[in-house]
Amino acid sequence: MGATLAELAHRCHGELRGDPDYRINRIATLEAAGPHDIAFVAGEKYLSQLAVTHAGAVVLGNADAGLYSGNMLLSENPRLCFTCVAAMLHPPVRPPAGVDAKAAIQTSADIATDAAIGPHAVVESGARVGRGVVIGAGCYVGRGAVIGDGTWLHANVTIGADCVLGQRCIVHPGAVIGSDGFGYARDGARWEKTPQLGRVTIGDDVEIGANTTIDRGALGDTVIERGVKLDNLIHIAHNVHIGEDTAMAACVGIAGSTRVGKRCTLAGQVGVVGHIEIADDVHITGATVVSHTIRQAGTYSSGTPLESYSSWLKNAVRMRQLDEMARRLKKLEQKLSAISEGGNIEE
Amino acid sequence: MGATLAELAHRCHGELRGDPDYRINRIATLEAAGPHDIAFVAGEKYLSQLAVTHAGAVVLGNADAGLYSGNMLLSENPRLCFTCVAAMLHPPVRPPAGVDAKAAIQTSADIATDAAIGPHAVVESGARVGRGVVIGAGCYVGRGAVIGDGTWLHANVTIGADCVLGQRCIVHPGAVIGSDGFGYARDGARWEKTPQLGRVTIGDDVEIGANTTIDRGALGDTVIERGVKLDNLIHIAHNVHIGEDTAMAACVGIAGSTRVGKRCTLAGQVGVVGHIEIADDVHITGATVVSHTIRQAGTYSSGTPLESYSSWLKNAVRMRQLDEMARRLKKLEQKLSAISEGGNIEE
Amino acid sequence: MGATLAELAHRCHGELRGDPDYRINRIATLEAAGPHDIAFVAGEKYLSQLAVTHAGAVVLGNADAGLYSGNMLLSENPRLCFTCVAAMLHPPVRPPAGVDAKAAIQTSADIATDAAIGPHAVVESGARVGRGVVIGAGCYVGRGAVIGDGTWLHANVTIGADCVLGQRCIVHPGAVIGSDGFGYARDGARWEKTPQLGRVTIGDDVEIGANTTIDRGALGDTVIERGVKLDNLIHIAHNVHIGEDTAMAACVGIAGSTRVGKRCTLAGQVGVVGHIEIADDVHITGATVVSHTIRQAGTYSSGTPLESYSSWLKNAVRMRQLDEMARRLKKLEQKLSAISEGGNIEE
Repeated sequence: MGATLAELAHRCHGELRGDPDYRINRIATLEAAGPHDIAFVAGEKYLSQLAVTHAGAVVLGNADAGLYSGNMLLSENPRLCFTCVAAMLHPPVRPPAGVDAKAAIQTSADIATDAAIGPHAVVESGARVGRGVVIGAGCYVGRGAVIGDGTWLHANVTIGADCVLGQRCIVHPGAVIGSDGFGYARDGARWEKTPQLGRVTIGDDVEIGANTTIDRGALGDTVIERGVKLDNLIHIAHNVHIGEDTAMAACVGIAGSTRVGKRCTLAGQVGVVGHIEIADDVHITGATVVSHTIRQAGTYSSGTPLESYSSWLKNAVRMRQLDEMARRLKKLEQKLSAISEGGNIEE
Repeated sequence: MGATLAELAHRCHGELRGDPDYRINRIATLEAAGPHDIAFVAGEKYLSQLAVTHAGAVVLGNADAGLYSGNMLLSENPRLCFTCVAAMLHPPVRPPAGVDAKAAIQTSADIATDAAIGPHAVVESGARVGRGVVIGAGCYVGRGAVIGDGTWLHANVTIGADCVLGQRCIVHPGAVIGSDGFGYARDGARWEKTPQLGRVTIGDDVEIGANTTIDRGALGDTVIERGVKLDNLIHIAHNVHIGEDTAMAACVGIAGSTRVGKRCTLAGQVGVVGHIEIADDVHITGATVVSHTIRQAGTYSSGTPLESYSSWLKNAVRMRQLDEMARRLKKLEQKLSAISEGGNIEE
Repeated sequence: MGATLAELAHRCHGELRGDPDYRINRIATLEAAGPHDIAFVAGEKYLSQLAVTHAGAVVLGNADAGLYSGNMLLSENPRLCFTCVAAMLHPPVRPPAGVDAKAAIQTSADIATDAAIGPHAVVESGARVGRGVVIGAGCYVGRGAVIGDGTWLHANVTIGADCVLGQRCIVHPGAVIGSDGFGYARDGARWEKTPQLGRVTIGDDVEIGANTTIDRGALGDTVIERGVKLDNLIHIAHNVHIGEDTAMAACVGIAGSTRVGKRCTLAGQVGVVGHIEIADDVHITGATVVSHTIRQAGTYSSGTPLESYSSWLKNAVRMRQLDEMARRLKKLEQKLSAISEGGNIEE
């Protein structure tokens, strides 16, 4: 493990200042870094630590090159450069290829010879597991599901029948892909279950967080496009469509048949109602409820600000009087206007 | 697989217009349907597609019979009729009866001979598994738990000790039924755990979504009545009681000891505080916080509307001034009233 | 099973009134209790049931001693006393020590001889499992993870590589500890994954609810201090630090790098943004969004109150006019002030 600064600079598109043969073993914070670590200035407030760091090298933005005299990699996008360095120095530890003796593989499943399948995993009939795939301990891969090359399912993931995952996806523990959508017909007071016959199809380079759930489509598919990143405990309902490179933080819920555009960001706990569309390049702040279609790129919000409980109590009760307050305000304006005119009082 | 229109009409209470012997293989959208598919007009906006569909038959509301000339099933409740047709044409694929060699069944567990128990499932001592039950791969059924006839646990479900599930329930992957409730006594700054000794009891025909959690009662039981439908990632706390045919969309949380009535609907991300009651036939809109008892049937809401971030910033800051605004408004009214009276100005 | 009142009084610091040799078998509600049950008055509204209970003994606050004439344990903190009694009468049923034949234990894992490891559990290489630990069916313990003495992992829990759990922790089914944090660098429109190299470290006596997720740190660790209690379906992001004895109810989400103090309580569905601090002894009411640092102990809130949908519709639309209303109010005040002065009208 480890690499020379020349190797890191070459692979991560950094401009090297310093000793090209200097050996770096791992990344570290500026504060904790030792002579064979490389560190990154994560923001302006850390620049002062440059003077005292013991790091063997640092990654810096081009503009900050003058602030340091040791080994450095310069980049227009130092965060990306450092991420590349980190990935190079700390590659994930893939388990060795092969099917664990304690896995349960149906004979008609098609498993690439270099896939790694952990203990107590299940791969059902007709499923296809691509080259270099890792299927963690306790995972369940349903009938006819397809797991694309290089995709990694961590422990205890469930993939429903016929669902399709692209290449190089990462799915974290406990995630469920392809559970039934929530669909019923009313029969008087009772609910009659509508069969959920669609799939979930997931593009390449998608990451799905721990205990996130993605329901299969009712008739068509639920679609997650290439490059989408979903954090933990997210719910994606049936027939939702998420455009490429969109990222959602934890605890977001998207109701059925909604389309989210490309390159959107949804912060934590955002809720989106069903059967609407969100345009490309829309950003939603935390805990916002998206109750209608958004056609314009931009940033959107809802919610009320944090207060002490005692002041919140006083203000929140007024929320229920807001329409009445607006009417009283209007009336006052009219009255005052009448006074001003009728009473000949100048402003 | 497949059925004649006569069979579908008979079983699903549709009025048949057209060829009773015509064979239908599957359901499809109006757009995608071929000559042996049956389709459904999901709403008025799809009526125009009737003219161009290639479906072998359609399901229509009685009132729309005149809009189509091909094979059709007419119904007062076409959605219910279509759901029945879909269920008939696409029955779930139950795994064959029997206990997988890789399951771990305690000898004192009582398993019906026609139950299907998947690989790596565990059934603990004293548990009872009814006729036609499916227990998916990786499920855990605790000591003394009871799984009613025809109930289906999908993969990786956890059922705690002594919990009882009714007949024909469906539990989706990752759901946890019977985890400990969140109960502690204060011991100075520390929390002392209160044993959670109750059960979860679940009626017939209940469906429970992926990664949903239902805690056992502290002393009495947590009760989910017949016909309740819970979507994904829902939390039901200890000693909650949910009335029959109530449905909750994803990401809802219900705090401890609350009673929810019958035939209620809770939209996504609703939160309900503990120790309150919600009457029968109450409907709660998405992301609402239910902070007190609701005694009247009807629809209830809380929350603020979606805005652009820039206008939200301006409005939200005023939320903290709302009580002060209300007082100033009141004062203005008094002042103006004094002026009107004292100053002899007519309205 | 069972204990004398003298034993209960001694162990649980209750003052005994009545027969010290009287035998108690279990706890019960006042209403359901029989002659060998002990019950607790959970609040003033239950005091009236004292007259009719058939309980063999009750736990009461010192001040209520005069309200009952049967066997009783008196305490300044009767809830704590009763919790102790309950724990004594109803100890958890630990499975017998030993490794199930269907578990998969890597040879380099270090397992205490009295640990109990269930069927289909996996313990990876280098992991250490302490004395008296219970690892439930289907659990996954990653490479190098440390499970402290007496800790109990219920079924289907996932512990990531190198994570550390203290002593006497309880982790409920489906919880995931040590999934990757949600960290990416921008590469044009695409997201490049930042390796998540830190751990999760968890102190002693921590309880973690079903399907809760705790991400590993990006570079440093995510830290959960001693005595923290987390309910179900909570998300703790990377590099969060939670102070000792803090408790969080279900569905809370804490974004990355935030520090929560000691002895805090967060009610259900609270959301906390990233990179902020919450002081010790802060209490947050349900569904509040904590959008900035809180430096003062106290109680904090956000959100709007519950209303009927029809009145909410009218009020919510005004929320978007709130800034405009505030400006109009100001203008009215100025106008009226001008009138009062200019027009010589006395208040």
